[in-house]
Amino acid sequence: MTEPKITPLEGEVHRTTVRVRFGDTDPYGIVYFVSYFRYCHRAIEEFLRVCGLKPEETFKNVQEGFGLPIVEAWGRFRRPPKYGELLRIETRIQEIRSKAIIFRFEFYPETGRELVAEGTANLVAIDAAWRVRELPELVKSALSHSFT
Amino acid sequence: MTEPKITPLEGEVHRTTVRVRFGDTDPYGIVYFVSYFRYCHRAIEEFLRVCGLKPEETFKNVQEGFGLPIVEAWGRFRRPPKYGELLRIETRIQEIRSKAIIFRFEFYPETGRELVAEGTANLVAIDAAWRVRELPELVKSALSHSFT
Amino acid sequence: MTEPKITPLEGEVHRTTVRVRFGDTDPYGIVYFVSYFRYCHRAIEEFLRVCGLKPEETFKNVQEGFGLPIVEAWGRFRRPPKYGELLRIETRIQEIRSKAIIFRFEFYPETGRELVAEGTANLVAIDAAWRVRELPELVKSALSHSFT
Amino acid sequence: MTEPKITPLEGEVHRTTVRVRFGDTDPYGIVYFVSYFRYCHRAIEEFLRVCGLKPEETFKNVQEGFGLPIVEAWGRFRRPPKYGELLRIETRIQEIRSKAIIFRFEFYPETGRELVAEGTANLVAIDAAWRVRELPELVKSALSHSFT
Repeated sequence: MTEPKITPLEGEVHRTTVRVRFGDTDPYGIVYFVSYFRYCHRAIEEFLRVCGLKPEETFKNVQEGFGLPIVEAWGRFRRPPKYGELLRIETRIQEIRSKAIIFRFEFYPETGRELVAEGTANLVAIDAAWRVRELPELVKSALSHSFT
Repeated sequence: MTEPKITPLEGEVHRTTVRVRFGDTDPYGIVYFVSYFRYCHRAIEEFLRVCGLKPEETFKNVQEGFGLPIVEAWGRFRRPPKYGELLRIETRIQEIRSKAIIFRFEFYPETGRELVAEGTANLVAIDAAWRVRELPELVKSALSHSFT
Repeated sequence: MTEPKITPLEGEVHRTTVRVRFGDTDPYGIVYFVSYFRYCHRAIEEFLRVCGLKPEETFKNVQEGFGLPIVEAWGRFRRPPKYGELLRIETRIQEIRSKAIIFRFEFYPETGRELVAEGTANLVAIDAAWRVRELPELVKSALSHSFT
Repeated sequence: MTEPKITPLEGEVHRTTVRVRFGDTDPYGIVYFVSYFRYCHRAIEEFLRVCGLKPEETFKNVQEGFGLPIVEAWGRFRRPPKYGELLRIETRIQEIRSKAIIFRFEFYPETGRELVAEGTANLVAIDAAWRVRELPELVKSALSHSFT
């Protein structure tokens, strides 16, 4: 019953593509698990842009006095993509709470359906003193509208 | 009752220190969450060395026909360390299963006791065909002895 | 008189775009100089692809017994792009020698003409024993044809 | 005759050690050339600390109104160190000008004398408006005293 307006995005998927670059692999030529988390951040950036939010004013906004740091992240890595491969990232909002957003990521081969990796990232709204606060209205409303 | 010999390390903590470097922060000068996962890998490397295992022969060992990829990772980031700070990483083996090892990490200020961040990383033993297999005996026995 | 066929690319420019990502900046929010070198490698990858060369078979090719490591790199950084900015990279082959290729890079704002940064990267052909050798014919001929 | 006091460091070498980490290599297990530039920055940080300068107050100092960005960098990479190797970095001030500092780096195997790689980095003093200015007195004097 709480936050009835924040559901339109449910089920909506944002897709972006990432190439496994030279510095993204481990010494054996497959994606270093750390790189997945970088890819996830990039997927969030693209997601925000599609919703009309500039990442550089959303992760931290001095004027509006808020920040949206990532306070938790998780990933499971199922198949080993190699240097040069293209991955499709499917990004969803798994949950919007009054003070937090949880993104969910799935990685697939560019044109395939086999899950390569999956993960989540939790962002929490904070004020200038680094205290948890309500999600800024502008972020909430931007994420509440369909982008497809 | 299974694997009775693999408990000595329980409770043992390996400590290492990491400095927040220039490329490790986000645009606002605090640790980029992705960097924590790099620090975790580094902590595993140091942990292995203390146990007598060379990381470069442990994460992948062509001669012995095994690999130990990280298949899952998680982190929670509580306080924002800044560029230049020293962090103490406390690394433990949270669990050794017949085919997997779970490391646990805690980050603290160099000389403080306030938890800055925490995380886990799951490694699974695979064979040359990338199939799950028993942990190599040499890894198992090296990790089963106290290093303090 | 030597290598008369390897000039068609002279003057030809390959353009690609790179976004300054979250992990690419220094603690003050501007591009970390190290990131430029990553961008340069990415520009080489795109350049090779446009020429019909797969980077994953060009930087090292076990079957053909050659490698093309970067043995020298240089960069000058004139203006400080910020997190979130789009940069246009203009990549040229500055010189093809019998055993080496020198790429030249220029960075501009996505739609501007003010030079943001510039650099070069020298690649040398080596054999499986890491000895300098002639450029592989397949690389030479691919780079000798116009891609525009 | 100009800047007669800024020579004591000439010839002085600062040594630090860096381990080739999991994410530092290319897909073939040898140091990615980009990583050398990260190592160089780290060497500058250690150099500054030995001179009594905190890097976090030296690369940018809001209170004193100056910055010291790296405006040029160069590297030559002679031998391919592998994942897990220890490298010794020898760092020198190659030149101090009235408005700039040039660092020089040499990479060796931890206990060997064969040059693995070498490079330089040029730092320029700027004011809050990003205009070139004289080196801050505190930086100049700190770098002018022997640290051995």
